[in-house]
Amino acid sequence: MFHPPLLFTLSRHFLRRHHHHRRLSTLSHTLSHPIYTIWSANTGLGKTLVSAGIAAASVASPPSKLVYIKPLQTGYPLDSDAAFVYRKIPQILHRRNPNFTLTASNQTLNVSIPAAKVKIGDNFSDSRNGFGEFGFCEERKVGEGVGEGSELICKTIYAWNEAISPHLASEREGAFVGDEEVLVLLKKCLEIGVGSEGQGSVLSLVETAGGVASPGSSGSLQCDLYRPFRLPSVLVGDGKLGGISGTISAYESLTIRGYDVVAIVLEDHGLENEVPLLSYLRNRVPVLVLPSIPKDPLDNLMEWYDESQTVFDSLKGIMLSSYEKQMYRLHEMPKKAQEIFWWPFTQHKLVPQEKVTVIDSRCGENFAVHKVKDHDYITQMFDACASWWTQGPNAALQIKLAREMGYTAARYGHVMFPENVYEPALQCAELLLQGVGKGWASRVFFSDNGSTAIEIALKMAFRKFLADNKLLMDLPHYNTDESNIELKVVALNGSYHGDTLGAMDAQAPSPYTGFLQQPWYTGRGVFLDPPFISMCDGVWKIAVPKKMHYEDVILEDTSFNSRDQVFNRSRDDSKLASIYSTYISQELLPSSGSRKFSYAGALIIEPVIQGAGGMLMVDPLFQRILVKECKNRKIPVIFDEVFTGYWRLGVESAAELLFCQPDISCFAKLLTGGMIPLAATLATNDVFESFVGDSKLSALLHGHSYSAHAVGCATACNSIKWFKDSQTNPNLVPGQNLLRELWDAELVRKISFHPAVQRVVSLGTLFALELKVEDNDAGYASLSGTALLLKLREDGIYMRPLGNVVYMMCGPCTSHRVCLQMLEKLYKQLDKQEKIQTAHDYDHDQRLPIA
Amino acid sequence: MFHPPLLFTLSRHFLRRHHHHRRLSTLSHTLSHPIYTIWSANTGLGKTLVSAGIAAASVASPPSKLVYIKPLQTGYPLDSDAAFVYRKIPQILHRRNPNFTLTASNQTLNVSIPAAKVKIGDNFSDSRNGFGEFGFCEERKVGEGVGEGSELICKTIYAWNEAISPHLASEREGAFVGDEEVLVLLKKCLEIGVGSEGQGSVLSLVETAGGVASPGSSGSLQCDLYRPFRLPSVLVGDGKLGGISGTISAYESLTIRGYDVVAIVLEDHGLENEVPLLSYLRNRVPVLVLPSIPKDPLDNLMEWYDESQTVFDSLKGIMLSSYEKQMYRLHEMPKKAQEIFWWPFTQHKLVPQEKVTVIDSRCGENFAVHKVKDHDYITQMFDACASWWTQGPNAALQIKLAREMGYTAARYGHVMFPENVYEPALQCAELLLQGVGKGWASRVFFSDNGSTAIEIALKMAFRKFLADNKLLMDLPHYNTDESNIELKVVALNGSYHGDTLGAMDAQAPSPYTGFLQQPWYTGRGVFLDPPFISMCDGVWKIAVPKKMHYEDVILEDTSFNSRDQVFNRSRDDSKLASIYSTYISQELLPSSGSRKFSYAGALIIEPVIQGAGGMLMVDPLFQRILVKECKNRKIPVIFDEVFTGYWRLGVESAAELLFCQPDISCFAKLLTGGMIPLAATLATNDVFESFVGDSKLSALLHGHSYSAHAVGCATACNSIKWFKDSQTNPNLVPGQNLLRELWDAELVRKISFHPAVQRVVSLGTLFALELKVEDNDAGYASLSGTALLLKLREDGIYMRPLGNVVYMMCGPCTSHRVCLQMLEKLYKQLDKQEKIQTAHDYDHDQRLPIA
Repeated sequence: MFHPPLLFTLSRHFLRRHHHHRRLSTLSHTLSHPIYTIWSANTGLGKTLVSAGIAAASVASPPSKLVYIKPLQTGYPLDSDAAFVYRKIPQILHRRNPNFTLTASNQTLNVSIPAAKVKIGDNFSDSRNGFGEFGFCEERKVGEGVGEGSELICKTIYAWNEAISPHLASEREGAFVGDEEVLVLLKKCLEIGVGSEGQGSVLSLVETAGGVASPGSSGSLQCDLYRPFRLPSVLVGDGKLGGISGTISAYESLTIRGYDVVAIVLEDHGLENEVPLLSYLRNRVPVLVLPSIPKDPLDNLMEWYDESQTVFDSLKGIMLSSYEKQMYRLHEMPKKAQEIFWWPFTQHKLVPQEKVTVIDSRCGENFAVHKVKDHDYITQMFDACASWWTQGPNAALQIKLAREMGYTAARYGHVMFPENVYEPALQCAELLLQGVGKGWASRVFFSDNGSTAIEIALKMAFRKFLADNKLLMDLPHYNTDESNIELKVVALNGSYHGDTLGAMDAQAPSPYTGFLQQPWYTGRGVFLDPPFISMCDGVWKIAVPKKMHYEDVILEDTSFNSRDQVFNRSRDDSKLASIYSTYISQELLPSSGSRKFSYAGALIIEPVIQGAGGMLMVDPLFQRILVKECKNRKIPVIFDEVFTGYWRLGVESAAELLFCQPDISCFAKLLTGGMIPLAATLATNDVFESFVGDSKLSALLHGHSYSAHAVGCATACNSIKWFKDSQTNPNLVPGQNLLRELWDAELVRKISFHPAVQRVVSLGTLFALELKVEDNDAGYASLSGTALLLKLREDGIYMRPLGNVVYMMCGPCTSHRVCLQMLEKLYKQLDKQEKIQTAHDYDHDQRLPIA
Repeated sequence: MFHPPLLFTLSRHFLRRHHHHRRLSTLSHTLSHPIYTIWSANTGLGKTLVSAGIAAASVASPPSKLVYIKPLQTGYPLDSDAAFVYRKIPQILHRRNPNFTLTASNQTLNVSIPAAKVKIGDNFSDSRNGFGEFGFCEERKVGEGVGEGSELICKTIYAWNEAISPHLASEREGAFVGDEEVLVLLKKCLEIGVGSEGQGSVLSLVETAGGVASPGSSGSLQCDLYRPFRLPSVLVGDGKLGGISGTISAYESLTIRGYDVVAIVLEDHGLENEVPLLSYLRNRVPVLVLPSIPKDPLDNLMEWYDESQTVFDSLKGIMLSSYEKQMYRLHEMPKKAQEIFWWPFTQHKLVPQEKVTVIDSRCGENFAVHKVKDHDYITQMFDACASWWTQGPNAALQIKLAREMGYTAARYGHVMFPENVYEPALQCAELLLQGVGKGWASRVFFSDNGSTAIEIALKMAFRKFLADNKLLMDLPHYNTDESNIELKVVALNGSYHGDTLGAMDAQAPSPYTGFLQQPWYTGRGVFLDPPFISMCDGVWKIAVPKKMHYEDVILEDTSFNSRDQVFNRSRDDSKLASIYSTYISQELLPSSGSRKFSYAGALIIEPVIQGAGGMLMVDPLFQRILVKECKNRKIPVIFDEVFTGYWRLGVESAAELLFCQPDISCFAKLLTGGMIPLAATLATNDVFESFVGDSKLSALLHGHSYSAHAVGCATACNSIKWFKDSQTNPNLVPGQNLLRELWDAELVRKISFHPAVQRVVSLGTLFALELKVEDNDAGYASLSGTALLLKLREDGIYMRPLGNVVYMMCGPCTSHRVCLQMLEKLYKQLDKQEKIQTAHDYDHDQRLPIA
C-alpha cells in the first residue's frame, strides 16, 4: 500500500514465492508416538542442548527409541546439531549408568556441494538442485547391558556449509529446496518410530533452525513451512535481559499460526524471567528453568546435564502427558459429538459413531483429519465441499487472515454500526461497491448470513415495488397488516435462498419447506420452470421445459460445442430468446380469483447456477430475458449471489456472466474468504431512496447486533483484495477480472462421455456431475453418489453427497494441477464402479438443499 | 489448565494483577501533530539512536518542535535515553550548520529513591510510593541563528536505578507505579506540542523500554500498557543473525494488539535481513536499513549520523505522510459513511454528517472516538450501549480473545460441521450444556444470530408439540403445506425476537412488523399482556394489567421494598399467583371460528427483561406461572435469552432468576463475549428425539454455512470461562454463580425519586430509567431522552436512545466504581435539566426495537 520514496533503494526485493501446494497433498503424520517440534525464540538460546536433554531423559529407561530430526542445518559439517545429540547422549547416559546399552546412528541425507566438499573432498559431484545425496552415516553401540537397549536415531535432512540462515546459505551455495520436498522427507523421517511402539516408548523430536520465524531454504518462514504438520511444540525461551519480550513474541508467532506450545524452557540468567512469563500465560503453560549454561567451550557439559536432569525429566513428563491427553481426546470426540451436537441437515440416527470425522485442523484447502488404521495418524484431505461452499484461502491467505482477524479484534472488538463509521466497515463497503456492485449499486446493508441478507433484500424490493407502483400513499395508513395487497416473488423452481421463514417463503414448495419442517411456510411465489443446461457426451445442451412449446425450438439454439457459446450475447437474437420471452410474459400475467390484489413484487434468482438445488446451470439467456421482462414491469430484481458470488463461478460476481444488473444483490459465504460469517445486501440508489423520508417509520427497520462487525469486514477486505490481485492469486487471467480455467477441459469432456454420467457442469471453482440412475432411484432420495464419495474420501478428497450429484469445489487460488489430480481420481473411481452401487449401509446421504 | 509436577517449584508465581480501568476513562490524546511510539524487537538494537536520528531530522528545519518522552527509564541516572537525545541533537545539528538555533530542555519527573540518591545524594527523601517528585531539569540554547529556532523537549516520566527490567527494578527499589498513573502523566506530556502547530512542525516521540513485550513497572507488558492510546508505531528491528525472526515476532505482537506499524528500521549487519522482511510484509510496510553502528563506546557517532541522514529523512517523511493520510481519512470518513452505508434502523435523512461518530478503536469497554474541538483529538468514551448489547470484554479479555481468534483461524479457518467434530465446537457445546443448559438441555444447535436461533427454536418447538400431541401420524403424508392445522405461538405483548420473518411472526403487531416493513408479516400468536415491575419512588411496584380483575389484587402482593423480594419464590403462594394463573388459563383456551384447527404450539418469552420493548421487567412470578401452565398443556417452552443470557442480568442464564427451565433456549450476543456472531439453540433430549427417525425427512432440515464456525466457538469458550472464573472476573460473588451488585443501590433508589423519572430498573449489567413525559409525547415516537443522551455523550458516555427510556449497559467485569461514576453523571445531568427538553434538531431518535 505504502510506497515511500526510499532514497536508498533496496537492491533486491523478492516477493514471496508461492509456496502453497501445487499438488494434491498426501501429507500425513503418525500419532503412534509423541512427536514434538523444538522451537526457539532466537538463535543461541541452547535449543540443541534442550533437544539432547529431552532425548537423554527419554532413552534413559530402556527399551526406548528416540528419533532426532534436524531438517535444515547450516554451518555443516562443523556445526551439526544431530552430531552433537549423537555424541552427547551416550556420554550422558554412560555417566549415569556405565552398563547402559544404546545403539546410536547419525545420518545426513542431502548436503550442498560446498558442504560436501568440506566433508569428503573435491571428488564429490553427484548433485541434484545443488545438493548431493550424501548418505553419510555413522553408527555405534555403547554399553554391554543385559536385555534390549535403547535406540537413538539422528537425521539431518538438508545441510549447507555457511553458518548463516538457510535462505542465504541456499542462495550463496546454489542449493535450494522447496517447502514441499522438505515436508515429504520430514514425513518419511517421522515414520521411523512407527511399528516399534510395542517394544517400548518412542519419541521423535524435530529441531528447527534459528528463531521461530527464521526463513527456511525457500524463504518461507519456518513457522509457516512446517505448519501443515502442526506438530505440538516446545519453545526454548530467553532468560536474558529483554528475553521476556522475545519469548512472548515468539510464543505469539507460533500461536497465531495455530501451533500448540506445551512448555517453555529457558536458561536461568538470574532475572527470573519465568515469573512474568507465567503471569502472561496465566499458568496455563508450564515454564521450566534450566541452570546457567557453562560459557567455556571446552566444558563437556556433563555437570550441567546432571544439574538439569530433573528439569528434563519434568519436561519429558509434560510432553508425554500432553500427548496422552491429546490421544484420549481424539478418541472420545466422535462419541461426545454424537451425544451433544445437533448437526444441521442431519438425521442423527443414520450417523454411526465411526462415520464422524474428527478434524484436527485445516491448512489452506486441506483438512487434517484424525484416522486410525493399524495406528493413529493425522492425514490431509482436500476439502472439496469447500466447507459448505464458503472456503477460499490457500495456506498463505489463511495465516494472513488469521493475523488480520487478531489485529482487528484487538483494535476494535465489535463496535456499534448505526450512525457510526470505522475503517473496516467503510473499506469493506467501498470494496463491495467498487467490485461486485460496480456500475449499479450505491449502498451496502450488512448482516450475518445469506438467509438474513435475503430477508433484507425482500424487504427492500417490496418497498421499491410499492413506491414505483404508487401503492404507498400515506405511510401511517399502510402501517398495518390489513393491507388488501398481496405481494409475491417471481422465482425459479429448484432455487434455494435460505432457511429462515422469509427466505423459505421465496422458494417453491419442497420436502424442505413442508409442514413437517416449518408449519408457517407458504410458498409466496410465482415459480417458473427454468431451462437447464449441461454438458452431455461432450456437448452443452439445453433442456427446454415442456411449457415453452418445445416443438418450436430450433435444434441449433439448444446445443453448443463450447461453454463460451452458451454465454455469448448473440443468442439474444435467437428464436429461443423469443420463446423464453413469451413464456415469461404469460407467467407474469396478473393472477385473478384471489380476494386480494396480487402483485409480483420482486424477482429473485441465483445467477447461472442453482447450487443447493443440485448444481443446476440455468440457461443464462433465460435469466437475462427474465431480468429484462421484470425490469420492464417495474419488478425489482434480486440476485442471490450468496453461493455464486466472489469467484465461485470464476468471476467476482456471477452477474458478469449474465451481462445484466440487478437492483439488489446478496453476498455471504466467500465474501470473507470463507472464514467467518458476514453478509451484505447491495442496493441501487433508487432502492435506497424508497426508504428515505421524514419519519423513522419509513426507514428500513431491520438489524442484527453484529451488523458490519469489524472482524468480519476486515476479513472480507483482505480476502477481496487477495483474490483479485495477480500477485497473490496465480489463477487470475492477466488483465481480466477472471479466473483461468481450473478444471481440465479435455478431462471434463471425457467424463461427460462416461456411461455412468448423466451430465457435467464445470464453471469457475465448481465441477459437478450427475450420475445416471434407475428411474426409481432418481431425485430427492437418491443414494447413488454415496459409494463413489466414500471411495474418494479414502483417496484424500473430502466430499459430501448431493443426492446423485457429485461435486468438487476448490478455492479461487487452487492450482490447476490439484484440480486435475482430483478429476483424475474421480475418473478412476467412476471407471472402477462399472455399475453404481447403492450403499445401503449409508442411506442417509440424500439430496440436500445445502450439502 | 496444565499443572505439571515441577520438581523445582518456582519460588513465586504472581498472577497478573487486574490492570483494567477502575475509573471511568478520561484518556484522550491529541492529533494536532504526529505522535509516534518507538518500539524495539529487543534491547540493545539502537532504539535511542533511532529516536535521536528522527528527532534530528525533524528539528533540522526550524521552526519546529520535537517532544521526546521516555515513560520508563531504568539504570538511571547513568543510563538516560532522554539525556542522550538532549545532548546528541545539538551536536548533530551544530555539525551540519554551526548557526543552527535550538532551545533544548531535559526533565525527569519521578525518580525512585535509590536513583535519586545517586543523582543528588543522601539528603533526598521526599517520596510517594517509593518515588521522589524529582523535578530535575536542565536547559540550554545552542546557536545564534536569525529568526525563530527549533525546540527540543525531553521528558523522563519514571526512572529507577538498576539497569534491569522496570518490573524488577520496581520490586527491588520499592517504587511501583500503576498503569493508569503512567498513562495519565503520558497524556499530559503528549499535550506539550498542542497549540504550537501554527509556529512550525511538531513531532512527539514516545520511546519504550526493552522489547515490545517487556514488562512495565506493574508487570503489564508495555504493548498492553500503552494500548489505550494505540499510537502509531515505528519498530526498531534486528539486523543480526536470527534477527529476522525476532523482528517478525515483535511486529506480530504489536499487530495482534491492534497497533499500526508504519515502518521498520534496522542496523545493517551484512545479512540483508530487510529482504525477507519486505517479502513477509509484502512491501506494505517500508523497511529501512541503517549503516553499521560503531562499536567503540568512545565514538561520538557524528559520522554515523552523517551516513544515516538520508535514512532518517526518509523515515521522518514516512511518519509525516502516514499522519497526513490518517488525518485525511478521519475527516472524510463521516461523509463517505453517509454516502455508501445503509445503517440498520436508521432514517438516513435524519443523520446529518456532523452526527456521525468516527470510532478509531476500542479498548475494553471504551471506544476511542475522533473529535475536533479547537484541534483534532482521540478521546475515550464508555460504550454504554455495550455495542448493541453484546459487549463484554475488559481490555485484558479483548486482547486474549483477539489472540485466540488468531490462533483458531490459523488452526481451523472454517470447517464443515455436519457429521464432523473439532475441538472448539465440541468444547463450546460442552460449556453451554454445563453452564446455561445445566440440568435440562442435552443438545446444541449452532447458528449465526439471535434471529436464526429463534427460527430454529420455533421449528423445534412445533415438531415437539406435534409429536407430543399425536398430530404427526405419517410423516410423508404431512409433508405438504396443505395441513389443516394452524399453529400459533404464545408470546407477550411488547416482546421482540428478531427481524427475520419467522421471528417477526412470533411478535405482536407493531410499527416494526407492519405492512410497510414486511408485507408478509402475520402475527401468528396468542399475545398476552404481562404485568411489568419497576422501581418508582424507592419501591418496586407491579403494574397489573386491567384484564386480570385488578380489584382482586391485594396491595402487598404488588409492592416490594427490595428486588430480592420480587424474585422470592414464596410469592408462588400469593393471591396474585392465582390471579395470574386464571388469566393465563383463559387466554390459552382454544380459539374457535377458524377454518383450521388452531393450536398454541409454543411459548416464547424473554425471561425477566423485555429488552428491545423498552427494558421492561416482567414480573418473574407471572413468567414462572406461564411456563408451568404451558408445560401442563404440553406446549413447549422457548426462552429467548439472546439479550438476557450470559451475565446481562447478573446471572449466566436468566432462567436462574425464574426458577424454572425451558424446553428450548436461545443464546447469542454475549455468548462470544460480544466479539463476533454466533448463536446457539439448546434443547432437551425430548425435543431432539422428536426429530429422530429412519428418514432424513424427519431430521431438522435447517442450516447455515458457518454453523459452529471454529472462530466463533473458540471465542465463546474463552469468554464463557473468563466471565465465570473469579481469577479473571473480579465481579463474581465468591462461591456463587452471580455478579455482585454493579449499580449502587442507594443512588439507584435516589434516582427513582427524581421528579423527571417515571421508573427505574437495575439488574446485572443493566441500568434503565424511563423519563416522565407529557401524554402526547410518550410511547413510540418519544424524543425526550435525546437531550439527556447528548449531554452524557459529551461527558464521555456513549449512549443511544430507546424512546423515553435511557439505559446504560456495562460488561460483566466492569468495576462497580465505573458504574457509580456513570450513575453520578447521569444524576447530575437529570438535575440540570429541570424539564426535559425535546430536542427538535435531533428528532430521529425514537423508540427502537433494537437500540
